[in-house]
Amino acid sequence: MPVPAAHRAVTRYNRPMRSVVLGLGISIDGYIARLDGTVDFLFMPKDYSMAEFLARVDTALMGRKTLDAARRLGPTAFDSAMATYVFSRTQPPGEREGVVFVNEDPAAVVARVRSRPGKDIWLMGGGELARAFLTADLVDELYLGVVPVLLGEGIPLFPAGFPQRDFKLLENKTYSKGMIALKYRRARRVM
Amino acid sequence: MPVPAAHRAVTRYNRPMRSVVLGLGISIDGYIARLDGTVDFLFMPKDYSMAEFLARVDTALMGRKTLDAARRLGPTAFDSAMATYVFSRTQPPGEREGVVFVNEDPAAVVARVRSRPGKDIWLMGGGELARAFLTADLVDELYLGVVPVLLGEGIPLFPAGFPQRDFKLLENKTYSKGMIALKYRRARRVM
Repeated sequence: MPVPAAHRAVTRYNRPMRSVVLGLGISIDGYIARLDGTVDFLFMPKDYSMAEFLARVDTALMGRKTLDAARRLGPTAFDSAMATYVFSRTQPPGEREGVVFVNEDPAAVVARVRSRPGKDIWLMGGGELARAFLTADLVDELYLGVVPVLLGEGIPLFPAGFPQRDFKLLENKTYSKGMIALKYRRARRVM
Repeated sequence: MPVPAAHRAVTRYNRPMRSVVLGLGISIDGYIARLDGTVDFLFMPKDYSMAEFLARVDTALMGRKTLDAARRLGPTAFDSAMATYVFSRTQPPGEREGVVFVNEDPAAVVARVRSRPGKDIWLMGGGELARAFLTADLVDELYLGVVPVLLGEGIPLFPAGFPQRDFKLLENKTYSKGMIALKYRRARRVM
């Protein structure tokens, strides 16, 4: 049965925009990893689950260093069915080893992913890629798990050098062992 | 009536240690001020009150730059009855204009303050002094108000360069306009 034009239009415009969610565990002082890339300070509280988050994303974006660090840690989420794009200036573009290497700017990659229907897009870091995405104002949501430690040094999630971005707090939950989960939505002013 | 020796001992050892509380408002990316020292991004939600916090402290510690920045903003908490110590390497030590300038290391100043009974001690920043206190492991508590903005650059509360410090989450509260208040207690391992 052909879909009426009006219905098609509604469906088309009501299709929720695939959000880019910057989601990571960090220390109180905002580090995603120690200087050597290890993340031993992060932990998963037993009353916390990533299931809900993982159910809403089907695409992962990350920098090449983050890929390397994650692979050193063993099997990871993006070894699954999740489409994974890895930003690299040194690796030749193309699909290899279950991921797609890209050497385009973030806006181009996000536009390509969004040109197809699908779920939300998980920006997994690291800090340099997060800064590039924030500079291009491509981050729609922050999903931060904050563990109760000051590392004192490490790889920052938010390295300095991008314009101010306002957010709206959507959720603030406390889990065992003092981990808190914060969800923020980008508050863009409509001009 | 003379106090029995046993009671004196209990009183003496049960007297709560005057905690050093690093208490500040910050952006999501951990800045206490913009690069020019302004703090226009901070706000006080109408359902939030500093009264409880102010009631538990009677002494303020800060760096000289923080004093200057605070004074540019007008009358401040430390213009009150709170004893205020300002760390400075350039100003001559001594009491002037309602504050006591000190040029000693943080441990010496904290020991001096603690040698007298009193309430808790508010470490008001800035980042350089916070780092010195964290390096000397003098911070007993963090009390952070996090406002929902990424500044992208500014003066960090936790500049890199101190050893790892573990904390225990005591409190996580959400206020209007998306401000969250986090209270952490230093978790020192007893060796």
